[in-house]
Amino acid sequence: MALRTISAKNAAALDKDLMSVGAYSLDQLMELAGLSVSQALYRVHPPSKGRKILVACGPGNNGGDGLVAARHLFHYGYQPTVYFPKKTGNELYERLTTQLKNLDIPFTEDFENMLKTTNHVIDAIFGFSFSGEVRDPFKEVIIAMENTKVPVLSVDAPSSWSIEDGPPESGPGAKFMPATLISLTAPKPLVKHFTGTHFVGGRFLPPSVAEKYDLDIPDYKGVDQVVEVGVSK
Amino acid sequence: MALRTISAKNAAALDKDLMSVGAYSLDQLMELAGLSVSQALYRVHPPSKGRKILVACGPGNNGGDGLVAARHLFHYGYQPTVYFPKKTGNELYERLTTQLKNLDIPFTEDFENMLKTTNHVIDAIFGFSFSGEVRDPFKEVIIAMENTKVPVLSVDAPSSWSIEDGPPESGPGAKFMPATLISLTAPKPLVKHFTGTHFVGGRFLPPSVAEKYDLDIPDYKGVDQVVEVGVSK
Repeated sequence: MALRTISAKNAAALDKDLMSVGAYSLDQLMELAGLSVSQALYRVHPPSKGRKILVACGPGNNGGDGLVAARHLFHYGYQPTVYFPKKTGNELYERLTTQLKNLDIPFTEDFENMLKTTNHVIDAIFGFSFSGEVRDPFKEVIIAMENTKVPVLSVDAPSSWSIEDGPPESGPGAKFMPATLISLTAPKPLVKHFTGTHFVGGRFLPPSVAEKYDLDIPDYKGVDQVVEVGVSK
Repeated sequence: MALRTISAKNAAALDKDLMSVGAYSLDQLMELAGLSVSQALYRVHPPSKGRKILVACGPGNNGGDGLVAARHLFHYGYQPTVYFPKKTGNELYERLTTQLKNLDIPFTEDFENMLKTTNHVIDAIFGFSFSGEVRDPFKEVIIAMENTKVPVLSVDAPSSWSIEDGPPESGPGAKFMPATLISLTAPKPLVKHFTGTHFVGGRFLPPSVAEKYDLDIPDYKGVDQVVEVGVSK
């Protein structure tokens, strides 16, 4: 089953709706988004496959989802390490960081070195608001993810990909194909270029909002916050 | 396995710790607590047993957990109805209420009448901060829960029970024994009077906080937010 996609512009409008008329706080949405990410990671890489997870977090909401996911992974018995080089001083991210530090979860400044002893990577660098060029320090990180044999799970978008058009024609990310992608709320148009395992997460979309944006609510099972869905070719 | 219990006084101090040095927002904690409640309900009463769930919410944080649980139950395919008679005007509860209304979840003012067509009740009236006497309108609700054959899941405490000493000697709640209890973070001393199915939820307790309050972190499985545990006799 392939789901209808949402453009970057509409994804931003949808988030705004959820936090205005929807009455959600960013805290709540990020908690549920990060929980979905952690459940997708568990599905493709249970702790028995190796507990060392490197979570790369960008400066925006995508990075926040990564910070939340790292915390849940700790409680599932993983040993996450967080790469979060661009701290913005934002109060919510400060709190999410403190929550991780209270669990003695290590932070690293050296993604490439840490990658050598990692079993799985979470790419929470850029999400649906990304456009343009990748700048340092993330350029090196994307090149490292592109070339490593360690499997990567990307959150909402493989970082460096255009949300509408997929991988860049050249430069960092042109050959980046993560093993797993989790689309939050709905897949973005880039999904048609993706050939790995695809999940949808974010089991909080009100039917009225799905209808407004012409989206499908996927067929989640039981109490799962994620569901594996096909990608359209 | 019986777990160590936490007193009402320490449960309040622990919550305060989580929201100060722990850097959690009440939004976050309530989201995770309510999610645990919804998962416990699913375990004892999957949708195939009947989708009509009546969620009774008190005026405090226990009621807030009920509001969150009702929302998750909707997304699992249940048809929740919410009884929430004592709205306080608190901003968080206003938002949680709006989130339910945006899903067209009905609110009822008549618990007893609604009970007649309900498959399962969630008792989120009073939690660990309860003491003293039950007042209207909750007195009638507790008597109804005490006498109904509809199964009840209580959140943190069967409402009307003393947190330390269990059921009152006489009056409303003296014979109230819900089928299921979910203890959030850790069981309260009343658990030794409880004879039904017991879950622990709230998979976010940092080991350092568990240690400070002399608590066990139960053996959660997979990505579950709840685990069934025995009760000490």
